[in-house]
Amino acid sequence: MKIAVDAMGGDNAPQTIIAGVERARDAFSDLEFLLYGDEQQIQAEIKDATRLTVVPTSEEILDTEEPVRAVRRKKDASMVVAARAVKEGQADAIFSAGSTGALLASGLFIIGRIKGIQRPGLMPTMPDFKTGGQFNILDIGANADSKPENLYQYAVLGNYYAKNMRQIEKPRIALLNNGTEPEKGDLVHKAAYQLLAGDPELNFIGNIEARELLNGVADVIVTDGFTGNAALKSIEGTAMAILSLLKRTIMNSGLKGKIGGALLKSDLGVMRDQFDYSRYGGAVLLGLKAPVVKTHGTASPEAVYYTIKQIRDMLAQHVVEDVVTYFSEHQLAKRPE
Amino acid sequence: MKIAVDAMGGDNAPQTIIAGVERARDAFSDLEFLLYGDEQQIQAEIKDATRLTVVPTSEEILDTEEPVRAVRRKKDASMVVAARAVKEGQADAIFSAGSTGALLASGLFIIGRIKGIQRPGLMPTMPDFKTGGQFNILDIGANADSKPENLYQYAVLGNYYAKNMRQIEKPRIALLNNGTEPEKGDLVHKAAYQLLAGDPELNFIGNIEARELLNGVADVIVTDGFTGNAALKSIEGTAMAILSLLKRTIMNSGLKGKIGGALLKSDLGVMRDQFDYSRYGGAVLLGLKAPVVKTHGTASPEAVYYTIKQIRDMLAQHVVEDVVTYFSEHQLAKRPE
Repeated sequence: MKIAVDAMGGDNAPQTIIAGVERARDAFSDLEFLLYGDEQQIQAEIKDATRLTVVPTSEEILDTEEPVRAVRRKKDASMVVAARAVKEGQADAIFSAGSTGALLASGLFIIGRIKGIQRPGLMPTMPDFKTGGQFNILDIGANADSKPENLYQYAVLGNYYAKNMRQIEKPRIALLNNGTEPEKGDLVHKAAYQLLAGDPELNFIGNIEARELLNGVADVIVTDGFTGNAALKSIEGTAMAILSLLKRTIMNSGLKGKIGGALLKSDLGVMRDQFDYSRYGGAVLLGLKAPVVKTHGTASPEAVYYTIKQIRDMLAQHVVEDVVTYFSEHQLAKRPE
Repeated sequence: MKIAVDAMGGDNAPQTIIAGVERARDAFSDLEFLLYGDEQQIQAEIKDATRLTVVPTSEEILDTEEPVRAVRRKKDASMVVAARAVKEGQADAIFSAGSTGALLASGLFIIGRIKGIQRPGLMPTMPDFKTGGQFNILDIGANADSKPENLYQYAVLGNYYAKNMRQIEKPRIALLNNGTEPEKGDLVHKAAYQLLAGDPELNFIGNIEARELLNGVADVIVTDGFTGNAALKSIEGTAMAILSLLKRTIMNSGLKGKIGGALLKSDLGVMRDQFDYSRYGGAVLLGLKAPVVKTHGTASPEAVYYTIKQIRDMLAQHVVEDVVTYFSEHQLAKRPE
């Protein structure tokens, strides 16, 4: 398997990217890497060049640029050239820690959608805080305006991912809504509910409220990109706010509290690790002709490693091929008579 | 000032409701109360009947009922009769800890909208975790489908509330969106941005992402009811999940951690109080002809007290009258020539 790596994307690129890539290369003998970016900078980080090929590129896309325009104009950007390598069959998948918007645009315009998929969805794997399990949620922001059919397709995509990648036979699919009753929601979510409930191939368990997101009640949570973005960022913001409040509370709590904090330190560290969902891999742009996976700009080499492991699993488990097959058969079945 | 109290709404009604009402009555000599509900149960809880009048009703609306239907059918429900008292001028405002949906319906169909307001918005006051301040956010769920004009009106409503109630001269108004740049958002939020930016009377500071909700960057945050609902419930769910994870972490942490937990206990209690936004009052259904305010079904007597104090402030600060005046002038100004 060959993975195209945008070596210049992310806050500490190419350093942390190359470190993570080398770790993955050492762990998995079936992986080869094409590293796109500044040749000199990349070469300076490489410790062992086994199964690594550097492909020099001269441009980079910044987080501050308008993504679609940047992808169209910067034809020699590391991310763009990496995506083109996937499109042309030189690589099987693309990894980036760069601009999410630019990766969405590169995936959509260069690699392209699977036939039958209207909109790809961006999907992370998140930890639940109650049962210790995980869940997938999509779309968390690839599309701002969504139709009920888009949400239905996210469910099919998430279902395949959970089946193939997490070995869940009948993934529990839930719809994020403003109440649990079937008639709840705005027009889009009411209609999406009907589509989900009407497909006997999906194990649709109904609506869930955002309050339940972290409680392990579903394996795949379907949402429109606007709401999913707000929900996910609210979770992140709240977790960060509480952890820093906890830290301040301990720091300002006088001797007694400080001793208490010191005694609890390692346990609080373990707890903090539970919030760190980078070890569950990156966010996948699902619905494209190849795995397109994004990790945080601040990702550690470890997070890069886990995300590459995830890409390898996606390739080994044939997630994309299975989705392609499903949608080609599905299209035929749905063709008007 | 006369407040109509739905004495039967909430998990521990009428007990906690009456306890909170009596506390407010003792604190504010200008308050009178009409208590709607089961006469016998209410009388059994009353310790001192000064400025309390019990109005017997025979029905109750349950949380499990379809709200609009329940409000229309149960003509002698405590909440419905209380709302009618406001409509008929026997009371100046209504308080309830009962079904949010039913209170929305009672407010909308019985008390009625202020002329010029298309949709009222549901708005709590929340603590920010960074600066120790507060913020208002609306709509958090009165309306599932919203138009840009609705969001614009929420800004005007929130602006008056923050000015009159929180004495902020130029409240910072922000739009909850999926990115900070002006061109971000779905069609509704893009258009709402233009309306907000186009009104020189509003101190519109632009878009904020959900990650920043608790960071004190704005005084009033405008959102559509579907997204606002998801954001708020995500915050609540995350806070609850982390606090229970923290508790489990301490419980399972062995002797060292347990001692640490015990030493930190009072400080963690203070921290937990910061999440408790019931002391900032209830959620106001803003845009109606009288204050309609809701507190949690599990509200303590203290939370009931704070919510009634808030209603008193709304009446004293003429929030509703000022909104009425604004929209009557505004309507005239906007009339086609």
